[in-house]
Amino acid sequence: MTGHRLFPSKRSDVAPFLAMDVLARAAELEKQGRRIIHMEVGQPAAPAPKAARAAAAAALVDGKLGYTEARGISALRHRLVTHYHDTYGVRVPENRVMATTGSSAGFNLAFLAAFDPGDRIVLTAPGYPAYRNIIKALGLVPVEVEVSAETRWSLTPELIRKAEKEGPVAGVLVASPANPTGTMMTPEALAELVTFCESNGIWFISDEIYHGLVFSGTQATALSTSHNAIIINSFSKYYCMTGWRIGWMVLPECLVRPAERIAQSLYISPPEISQIAAAAALDAHEELDLVRAGYAENRAFLLEALPQIGFDDLLPVDGAFYIYANTSRFAPVSLDFTQRMLEEAGVAATPGADFDPVHGAEYTRFSFAGSLADMQEAVERLKAWLG
Amino acid sequence: MTGHRLFPSKRSDVAPFLAMDVLARAAELEKQGRRIIHMEVGQPAAPAPKAARAAAAAALVDGKLGYTEARGISALRHRLVTHYHDTYGVRVPENRVMATTGSSAGFNLAFLAAFDPGDRIVLTAPGYPAYRNIIKALGLVPVEVEVSAETRWSLTPELIRKAEKEGPVAGVLVASPANPTGTMMTPEALAELVTFCESNGIWFISDEIYHGLVFSGTQATALSTSHNAIIINSFSKYYCMTGWRIGWMVLPECLVRPAERIAQSLYISPPEISQIAAAAALDAHEELDLVRAGYAENRAFLLEALPQIGFDDLLPVDGAFYIYANTSRFAPVSLDFTQRMLEEAGVAATPGADFDPVHGAEYTRFSFAGSLADMQEAVERLKAWLG
Repeated sequence: MTGHRLFPSKRSDVAPFLAMDVLARAAELEKQGRRIIHMEVGQPAAPAPKAARAAAAAALVDGKLGYTEARGISALRHRLVTHYHDTYGVRVPENRVMATTGSSAGFNLAFLAAFDPGDRIVLTAPGYPAYRNIIKALGLVPVEVEVSAETRWSLTPELIRKAEKEGPVAGVLVASPANPTGTMMTPEALAELVTFCESNGIWFISDEIYHGLVFSGTQATALSTSHNAIIINSFSKYYCMTGWRIGWMVLPECLVRPAERIAQSLYISPPEISQIAAAAALDAHEELDLVRAGYAENRAFLLEALPQIGFDDLLPVDGAFYIYANTSRFAPVSLDFTQRMLEEAGVAATPGADFDPVHGAEYTRFSFAGSLADMQEAVERLKAWLG
Repeated sequence: MTGHRLFPSKRSDVAPFLAMDVLARAAELEKQGRRIIHMEVGQPAAPAPKAARAAAAAALVDGKLGYTEARGISALRHRLVTHYHDTYGVRVPENRVMATTGSSAGFNLAFLAAFDPGDRIVLTAPGYPAYRNIIKALGLVPVEVEVSAETRWSLTPELIRKAEKEGPVAGVLVASPANPTGTMMTPEALAELVTFCESNGIWFISDEIYHGLVFSGTQATALSTSHNAIIINSFSKYYCMTGWRIGWMVLPECLVRPAERIAQSLYISPPEISQIAAAAALDAHEELDLVRAGYAENRAFLLEALPQIGFDDLLPVDGAFYIYANTSRFAPVSLDFTQRMLEEAGVAATPGADFDPVHGAEYTRFSFAGSLADMQEAVERLKAWLG
């Protein structure tokens, strides 16, 4: 019986990202000569800041890029310490800051360091799909709690208490501003939730990847409330460095060594050239704030133009660069809607099913990280297509 | 009860790398002004090849480095297809080649795609310590099988059969040339083992990271025997690109999509700049073969000089850049030996306990990836210190 057990694992049976399928189909259409407006990926159109690229180019000259400490080079970690002080007025010791290979590695390491198989982790639905896929792959149990306009698309202590009735909750994961909703918790609501988790012995994981991209309201870090919060962040969004795979964590003291030990085996270290570039990017606010100003223009344009062509049920867009729109008036299933929109209007967006297995079919996520001209053309095309 | 459950996970209690502690202590001594000869890390002293750095520098100019397909850019994957044809005469379709964030990501993805919690994976002792740490973190069971001079430090079908008596074996992981032993299986022995695994429904994982660095005997890829073998490789060793965190896998057809789906969530994609540089590195044989010639000189020098100063029990050094020496005549526990050698002689090496929990105390691993001058000075220092 040759190869009778040579099958994939059960745990590898996770859902693929529909956004990736959209991306692949868009690429096919582009090969055929069509021009596609890309609103499907959560990726800045701008390149990494000049200073970051210059630092990387300098590092290439003698080229001695090697393994670094698993937790990252001191220059980057030290610069992140001052970043927390300058941005939030929070003091954090350097040893609790760890560079990671994107926030992807941050989540993986945080989950492994804090949770054992069977532990239940509360997430929002809608939410970033990689959360539940990583959680499942590691033998943890994602507990997806539906959020709605009632709590401004956020978790509350009441919702956690409800989830606890079905079994103990080991962790709570919150993104604010959130993907795909773009909504943000108030500093008070966030602090209340962090305190609730801490006093109930629940790890609080704060995904702060969209910090720096806030258009309405005040951003707050969970670190301001508790040094037991696990902070995940990245250079991919505000810093325009997706392809560099570089991010960071701030860890509670007791998780520092566990996370470091696991990182030594699972990652060895983040890419050194990306660490060097990232340290420089932290000083590039002038350039990056211009990019953000571009998003703000896109946002203002779309919030006015979209309702005029029938997209009149949008979530509040406090931060990030997404508009999460109810598209059920155009099609009952947004997967169909986005497929037709791509084929017929040449506009790529992501169906809500990626983010929410229950209500996602009613929604479509539009990213406005591209240029204003692209946003304008998208609206023209959609107007013609829908009208 | 504030924070009453806020403890690290049980699974994060993995052993740290002693090599990293040696590295850290060596760095301290260097800060004090001491000159240390580094023979502790498995890292080429040479930088990435010029062509790779030039390709990276060119990519920095317009700087549009973004997420790529989870399996990597087509240019790299296509070039790897020709690499297999040119190097081994093996034809492999591009869709089975996947770029990874170093071989570290390759192992993680292969284990997740092929194995479910509780599955038993056979490894050699001695062996690369990250294997067992990743395996444990993922809820799998490492079955460490002691190898010895009798089987030329390699696994055999008999040893696997023996391991099967204690429970079913889901996978077998082999590195050839191996770390830390530097020994290599003959093409025939490898083919026999691959065939045995395939016909018994056991996944065979072939770590081929030290291919290209072979000084004695003939290297063979497990792909030549079976397209059900899982091949892991990296640009870190022969290609001198440790710090770039870029590697690749060749997967059996049925694991391609499972691995890709998991990679989308766990890594999104490998760093784009590293993928671009890696594709160029595959054409830099002239430069890289010079680097390898330097290792060959180092190896020849050490194999003659070390026995003269008392290191007369060395494993065969077929490939890689390690000498695994029995140092029990100098000290019963090599951790003590390496600590004293570092403090007193200024030579850094890795205690065998990193690689073998049972017999590692008798061994020390010396890396000869540095310069010949450094190797010569190391021998001078050791001679004076031991004599």
